[in-house]
Amino acid sequence: MADLDFYFFPGSTHTYLTVNRIDRLATEAGVSVRWRPYNLRAILLETKVVPFSPGTAKRRYMWRDIERRATSLGIPYTREPRYPVDPSLISLRVAMVAAREGWCAEFTKAYYRAWFLEDRPAGLDDNMPALLSGLGRDPEEVLATANEESFNAVLDASADEARRIGLFGSPHFVVQGEVFWGDDRLEDALAWAARAVTD
Amino acid sequence: MADLDFYFFPGSTHTYLTVNRIDRLATEAGVSVRWRPYNLRAILLETKVVPFSPGTAKRRYMWRDIERRATSLGIPYTREPRYPVDPSLISLRVAMVAAREGWCAEFTKAYYRAWFLEDRPAGLDDNMPALLSGLGRDPEEVLATANEESFNAVLDASADEARRIGLFGSPHFVVQGEVFWGDDRLEDALAWAARAVTD
Repeated sequence: MADLDFYFFPGSTHTYLTVNRIDRLATEAGVSVRWRPYNLRAILLETKVVPFSPGTAKRRYMWRDIERRATSLGIPYTREPRYPVDPSLISLRVAMVAAREGWCAEFTKAYYRAWFLEDRPAGLDDNMPALLSGLGRDPEEVLATANEESFNAVLDASADEARRIGLFGSPHFVVQGEVFWGDDRLEDALAWAARAVTD
Repeated sequence: MADLDFYFFPGSTHTYLTVNRIDRLATEAGVSVRWRPYNLRAILLETKVVPFSPGTAKRRYMWRDIERRATSLGIPYTREPRYPVDPSLISLRVAMVAAREGWCAEFTKAYYRAWFLEDRPAGLDDNMPALLSGLGRDPEEVLATANEESFNAVLDASADEARRIGLFGSPHFVVQGEVFWGDDRLEDALAWAARAVTD
């Protein structure tokens, strides 16, 4: 039995599916999960990858695939949400603050619900303060930490770690260095963790 | 119950997994499959997509994912095969000739076995004639048809069809206009076909 690191970027669409099911599946498998937001944008920029260009067949497919998967997994999905949604990386920054302080899972679930189901993506239209207040957090305090100049080093460190491990998307699951990519590999990653030999 | 169109490009790596299991799963599901090689390269070139750039984390992940999936699906896998393997599109052309003449599944299975397990990719080192002979085909005759100037129209028509349907990778499964992408969607696509209402 090993722990599972759940690396993700809050601008990722398929990650919505994972956020809605990883806790339940991990509990069933008896696996501990660490929520690890990371700066995927830095990786995409340096590799010149645009995951889903507007107007492409791949972009249209992405939404249809999420809708179909949500339906079959019993996850709420009503309509195609706005995208992209985190131009300033503020959602990533807040998720990383939350990860340091132990409320990342709670934040990320509320964040995706607001984005996908309530049309209030926290990275747009100054929606973040209300989201944080709703979680009982002080928006001013959290945003001050998230926007501190010194916090850039935390984002940079997450990108360095991603390069070292070999991450290039979201969601990723990592178990003892074994990398899995995509919500549809969650079961495989949990099985890998469950049968891992640890000291 | 509806039929399933299996669109693929013989340069695709993950398609190896599908080729090794689609017939068995389709038979179990009672679904008829049409093997439809298509000119994915034209689509990738016009959208400027390079699926797995050399030296990238995504490329390394692709091989590891195939190895893991082959193991769990009981499909032979010994080592990372050569890639890319169809610079002149001769494998695509022959697959399309085979599709017109009714021996595409047989050809494609032998083609992937030669590429992945025997280090004899048919698109390199003039390996194609021996592959065709092994299938009881006349290499000269098949290659003459495949390389005819007029055959370019068949390749172009397949790309037009792909644009119309919204294909951008390999393997794709299409059921009554519903598009699935990736070997890991094969079960979903077959289930979709099995429960489809037809006139």
